[in-house]
Amino acid sequence: MQTKKCLELNDNMTKKLKLGMVGGGSGAFIGEVHRIASRIDDRFELVAGAFSSNPEKAQASGRDIGIADERNYKDYLEMVEKELIREDKIDAVAIVTPNHMHHPIAKAFMEKGFNIICDKPLAMNINQCEELIKCKKENNVLFALTHNYTGYPMIRNARALCKRGDLGEIRVIQAEYAQDWLTEDLENRINDGGNKQASWRTDPNQSGAGGCIGDIGTHAYNLIRFITDLNTEEISAELTSFVPGRKLDDNAQISLRFKGGAKGTIWSSQVAPGNENHLQIRIYGNKAGLEWCQEDPNYLYFTKFGEPKQKITRGGSGAMSDAGDVTRIPAGHPEGYLEGFANIYTDVANALIDQKNGKFNEENHHFPSVEDGLEGIKFIVRSIASSSSNSSWVNFN
Amino acid sequence: MQTKKCLELNDNMTKKLKLGMVGGGSGAFIGEVHRIASRIDDRFELVAGAFSSNPEKAQASGRDIGIADERNYKDYLEMVEKELIREDKIDAVAIVTPNHMHHPIAKAFMEKGFNIICDKPLAMNINQCEELIKCKKENNVLFALTHNYTGYPMIRNARALCKRGDLGEIRVIQAEYAQDWLTEDLENRINDGGNKQASWRTDPNQSGAGGCIGDIGTHAYNLIRFITDLNTEEISAELTSFVPGRKLDDNAQISLRFKGGAKGTIWSSQVAPGNENHLQIRIYGNKAGLEWCQEDPNYLYFTKFGEPKQKITRGGSGAMSDAGDVTRIPAGHPEGYLEGFANIYTDVANALIDQKNGKFNEENHHFPSVEDGLEGIKFIVRSIASSSSNSSWVNFN
Amino acid sequence: MQTKKCLELNDNMTKKLKLGMVGGGSGAFIGEVHRIASRIDDRFELVAGAFSSNPEKAQASGRDIGIADERNYKDYLEMVEKELIREDKIDAVAIVTPNHMHHPIAKAFMEKGFNIICDKPLAMNINQCEELIKCKKENNVLFALTHNYTGYPMIRNARALCKRGDLGEIRVIQAEYAQDWLTEDLENRINDGGNKQASWRTDPNQSGAGGCIGDIGTHAYNLIRFITDLNTEEISAELTSFVPGRKLDDNAQISLRFKGGAKGTIWSSQVAPGNENHLQIRIYGNKAGLEWCQEDPNYLYFTKFGEPKQKITRGGSGAMSDAGDVTRIPAGHPEGYLEGFANIYTDVANALIDQKNGKFNEENHHFPSVEDGLEGIKFIVRSIASSSSNSSWVNFN
Amino acid sequence: MQTKKCLELNDNMTKKLKLGMVGGGSGAFIGEVHRIASRIDDRFELVAGAFSSNPEKAQASGRDIGIADERNYKDYLEMVEKELIREDKIDAVAIVTPNHMHHPIAKAFMEKGFNIICDKPLAMNINQCEELIKCKKENNVLFALTHNYTGYPMIRNARALCKRGDLGEIRVIQAEYAQDWLTEDLENRINDGGNKQASWRTDPNQSGAGGCIGDIGTHAYNLIRFITDLNTEEISAELTSFVPGRKLDDNAQISLRFKGGAKGTIWSSQVAPGNENHLQIRIYGNKAGLEWCQEDPNYLYFTKFGEPKQKITRGGSGAMSDAGDVTRIPAGHPEGYLEGFANIYTDVANALIDQKNGKFNEENHHFPSVEDGLEGIKFIVRSIASSSSNSSWVNFN
Repeated sequence: MQTKKCLELNDNMTKKLKLGMVGGGSGAFIGEVHRIASRIDDRFELVAGAFSSNPEKAQASGRDIGIADERNYKDYLEMVEKELIREDKIDAVAIVTPNHMHHPIAKAFMEKGFNIICDKPLAMNINQCEELIKCKKENNVLFALTHNYTGYPMIRNARALCKRGDLGEIRVIQAEYAQDWLTEDLENRINDGGNKQASWRTDPNQSGAGGCIGDIGTHAYNLIRFITDLNTEEISAELTSFVPGRKLDDNAQISLRFKGGAKGTIWSSQVAPGNENHLQIRIYGNKAGLEWCQEDPNYLYFTKFGEPKQKITRGGSGAMSDAGDVTRIPAGHPEGYLEGFANIYTDVANALIDQKNGKFNEENHHFPSVEDGLEGIKFIVRSIASSSSNSSWVNFN
Repeated sequence: MQTKKCLELNDNMTKKLKLGMVGGGSGAFIGEVHRIASRIDDRFELVAGAFSSNPEKAQASGRDIGIADERNYKDYLEMVEKELIREDKIDAVAIVTPNHMHHPIAKAFMEKGFNIICDKPLAMNINQCEELIKCKKENNVLFALTHNYTGYPMIRNARALCKRGDLGEIRVIQAEYAQDWLTEDLENRINDGGNKQASWRTDPNQSGAGGCIGDIGTHAYNLIRFITDLNTEEISAELTSFVPGRKLDDNAQISLRFKGGAKGTIWSSQVAPGNENHLQIRIYGNKAGLEWCQEDPNYLYFTKFGEPKQKITRGGSGAMSDAGDVTRIPAGHPEGYLEGFANIYTDVANALIDQKNGKFNEENHHFPSVEDGLEGIKFIVRSIASSSSNSSWVNFN
Repeated sequence: MQTKKCLELNDNMTKKLKLGMVGGGSGAFIGEVHRIASRIDDRFELVAGAFSSNPEKAQASGRDIGIADERNYKDYLEMVEKELIREDKIDAVAIVTPNHMHHPIAKAFMEKGFNIICDKPLAMNINQCEELIKCKKENNVLFALTHNYTGYPMIRNARALCKRGDLGEIRVIQAEYAQDWLTEDLENRINDGGNKQASWRTDPNQSGAGGCIGDIGTHAYNLIRFITDLNTEEISAELTSFVPGRKLDDNAQISLRFKGGAKGTIWSSQVAPGNENHLQIRIYGNKAGLEWCQEDPNYLYFTKFGEPKQKITRGGSGAMSDAGDVTRIPAGHPEGYLEGFANIYTDVANALIDQKNGKFNEENHHFPSVEDGLEGIKFIVRSIASSSSNSSWVNFN
Repeated sequence: MQTKKCLELNDNMTKKLKLGMVGGGSGAFIGEVHRIASRIDDRFELVAGAFSSNPEKAQASGRDIGIADERNYKDYLEMVEKELIREDKIDAVAIVTPNHMHHPIAKAFMEKGFNIICDKPLAMNINQCEELIKCKKENNVLFALTHNYTGYPMIRNARALCKRGDLGEIRVIQAEYAQDWLTEDLENRINDGGNKQASWRTDPNQSGAGGCIGDIGTHAYNLIRFITDLNTEEISAELTSFVPGRKLDDNAQISLRFKGGAKGTIWSSQVAPGNENHLQIRIYGNKAGLEWCQEDPNYLYFTKFGEPKQKITRGGSGAMSDAGDVTRIPAGHPEGYLEGFANIYTDVANALIDQKNGKFNEENHHFPSVEDGLEGIKFIVRSIASSSSNSSWVNFN
């Protein structure tokens, strides 16, 4: 047993928030992740859902999950309509469908005043994003985009180090997100268990114009912005589809010029054997550098120029309060992906409570926003534009 | 996104199991861990508790946690009595108090037919353990001891490799569990946040005769047994209290002779600066060796003699089905301590369902048992006996 | 002690080869490295030199090194002239001056029939390289360029894996070489010990038009070619000088399009705090991937798609004969930078012996050539051209 | 290129020291290591030898190595006799035979006034050691024992940290040296390349009474003493021969009680698959802890209690001057086993020069001594005594 100072856990809510979900039926990956994340800190109860675009499958999944029949909807339109008239209506809906459905579903719910938790990328194009931003403002709802890696404690620590000026002026950013699961043409293997994931994620009609750049590259880009607060001026991209017949990119090399003069690169790949979820970010300023890797997320390596490298650990002596705020258990007992994801949900729970009490203030919360979603889509769209014009530099805004 | 084969998650229970808890009020560490672990797979609902030995504190904690007033008990005796007569009585009680209370509480509940989930070490001495074993049998209840590290997927994989014979005949085992949080006399710092944990854990009246050997050494010992199924023949120990004034050991060096000829050592320390929760186990047979470290629990290093070392990852290509059975998310997205702990709870949930259906069979479950608890106490007691007689070899049984 | 099969060391030469050196006087770094490298396998004896452009310093350095007075020359022209007429003339000259002197010195020696060992980068521009290639052919001498990292055993192993087809068709290459020593304007600190190195390396008149791209980026580029045998079709570069007042680039982001369709990036930086000599190369094909890092050079990580990652160690079970050929000591006893450098020298020694015996055949040797030097200069020149035209793609040849 | 402050290399000796060697002919491992180590800093020239106990093999090996015929001796007795009368006699003899020959050879040379460099373990028993100590004193010669790991820069740094008090009072030491090359009965495979090494090292007549404890355990023990200066009060050992038919221990578990109260363990094994030369030492005091591993020798991990772990690198910012004194090349360019070994040789060279000049003072040198050799033999002898008496504690002196 070890007890360093850590998060005073908030399970003191006498009444849990009510969560609905669209998508995430059987065979889905991210839906189950959202459900676990919503449970970890005991702030949400999943009470309603439309779990598939196929009505029978939707309801079978809902039954498996344990949703009461009356709130186990055939589709999201029925769900909007029927939840709206309930007294105990859901406090928020989690949208965990393939990308092309994010926009219509989020819009339909927002227009009726529901708060949104939406998986990334936000939508299929910039217009859709702008519509969602407008819709969110007009209906005065909360909108959280689950760029879940921002929930890791050591990412919060990295952000706090940058904000405090410990890195000095940021010069160079190297980010990468590499996987290997699409090394072969998994999308064409009808009978393979991985097929469903592979096929929608490599299908432009469901994923949008970005392949690996949209699925994982956006995470890397979002992390850069989250940690450094830098804005992008220009972007240059080289997108490639290595697997024969694949319709979307499976490897992306991106260069970034940030406002103020920093430079960055993002490498994103789903055809790099030996990489499972190698999301790494390294940031170098004129005073110090830092390095973090998602596969070992409890450690942040920090080097002041001219001093030995430090290993800052979640919950450990060198961790800052921004990390402590999202730390459940002592140093040396690893927290992982689900806990990081849960930190987004818990932050949303706090925001929903604040909203109910009329005290919501964006500055008190860290969850990625619908505006971050637009930035992510710009990242995809501008990268594709650059890649189509022989990697020329493209204005980001 | 990446989708390798992983656990078909069982959240298809239309009715959650009802959990009670004794101990784990405000300021506790392990109680909160048990609560999160019970929630992750959505199999339990915490409905009753007696959260402290201090009645006011107990009920304040229960309110914070969100327990209904009528099941928020002043003490565990009231809880036994009142739960017993409820129709919707708890399916199991989790005991997360300091060690000296495990025995009376478990006994009181078992005698009324309640199933038990109990933190380790099981009790204060061998007699108490034997009483609990007897009591468990007489009342035909389930008893799970939360040696949580057995829940890690790669520990399951290690066990499966041993069982399949991939290591050949096991020769050498090196286990260690090192921390640094008791490097100074934290137990005497009344105003320090860590004080409560440090004081009961270094107090023989609450912890029993073992200090670090009981708090963490038992975990290492339990892992050895869990992975290898070896039985101990003799044990030799050198226990030391390095911090002036400390009443219990804070460093332990143990040698083990196993039946069949294997040899092992366990080093356990709470005064080793730079170690957070460094629980490591290395096992060497005549055909292969394996290495695992709790602080990076998603990786198991396996080397067949004469071949390159392999890094087997949770959810990855080399992982066996025993690991896959307790894997929630794809390789490269780390699971940690809480997920490992949750695997114990989920296994207990399955056992409770089987029990209800009259189908419980020990062989289908992996959670550590009350008998494992006796082994753990023997480990502590025999070590102390050896250390008191100048580290002479002591028969284990 | 451990004895796996390793290099049958060739110290059976009854007569050592005679080495001369130009540059490398006191305060130099790379000259001393060359001298140690030449000694490790006992194949060379350093017998002559002109160790500095300053005649007094040259001769003082020569005396320190232990060179006989009569062969301790004031300058390289005297050295060419006087060595030429000796019966026991040098077998090769090592040129370890700042870059701008490589061309005139190499030319002067080659024109008199001397064999050359030259530090990288080869020269100041493409013309000089072509002249040296021509000169080398006309005079029928040997020319070795000390891209020393090609001498590491695990780099040889990586090359052998690629050649054997274990990676399949190569798709993606990620190389990087990051340092931090020029994070501040060290070149302006006259009294600092590091000053001499920093000042010539950031001075276009001595270094050429490339800063970090020439000093270290070329190493990364050379390794890519050495391991994969790929040829570059187009290159795009973004060079930056972050330190105010610095005349040459201290950060470079390079994209590569290889003939046949593979893509690559090189990141090279001397302003990345926390990086000492972080030279890393990762290569991904459609069958497997490999990863290597110079700071831990004895390990090569190799992952066949769908299998666990393997750690191949120098001298260990999985190492191939190409690595074994340049391995001195058993696995687990690390060899480092100097041994890797020595492997180049020993290969040159073997070539010189073959030359003497009229049996020299390029295919039996691995040391980088003057033609590789031209490729390196093209890499620098084309990068600068691209960077000057807003990172547009530039034909490599 | 990177230039941090590092060792001002001493290759300014106009006249190299003359080295002789006994043992180390073809098929030997450590003889070649000594030869390379002696060359790296250019301080020695190998001029004479008796390279095998078999006269023909001795002379064939000498010819291969390039020794002049007149100094290529049939046996060590001839070598003593003939070297003695030469004007240009050797300055020191390196003894690199199997263990049982160390004593007679060292004695024969010392009695004629020759300085000794001897491999470890020093001799076959305590009596022999004491004789050698006496002989060394009577003849006033230098005696260096090549416990080579003491030559690693970061070991020097560890020692300096202890001496400066940065660890506070030392409490716990965990050392281990594990290999796997004797997992099978290699000594019985006549035709295997590894046979020669395996057979003498597992033969009590050539190795002495210790197997792995003598071959590698002594290195771990020596490192503990070198770094901490602690003296051992009592020792307890459990030695095992796991491989059927093996005559000496291949696994050793040792406990140590140091004067002053510190405790330690040493695990030494040659049957641990996956370990090549895993020599690791961890030292914990009441203020800080440090960790070092031979397979990655350029890094020392240092943690002040309550602060983040630091990675101190050879040549890097946090390295102390004691490390810098034996550092050749900048941080990030790894030095390895041979360089560490060379540091012993170079220290001996400096001592020999001082001796010639009548200025030898033990305090200026770090090479292990004949007295350290006695300590090493005591470690072996006392361990065997303890193991023979059921691991009882045995007085060390």
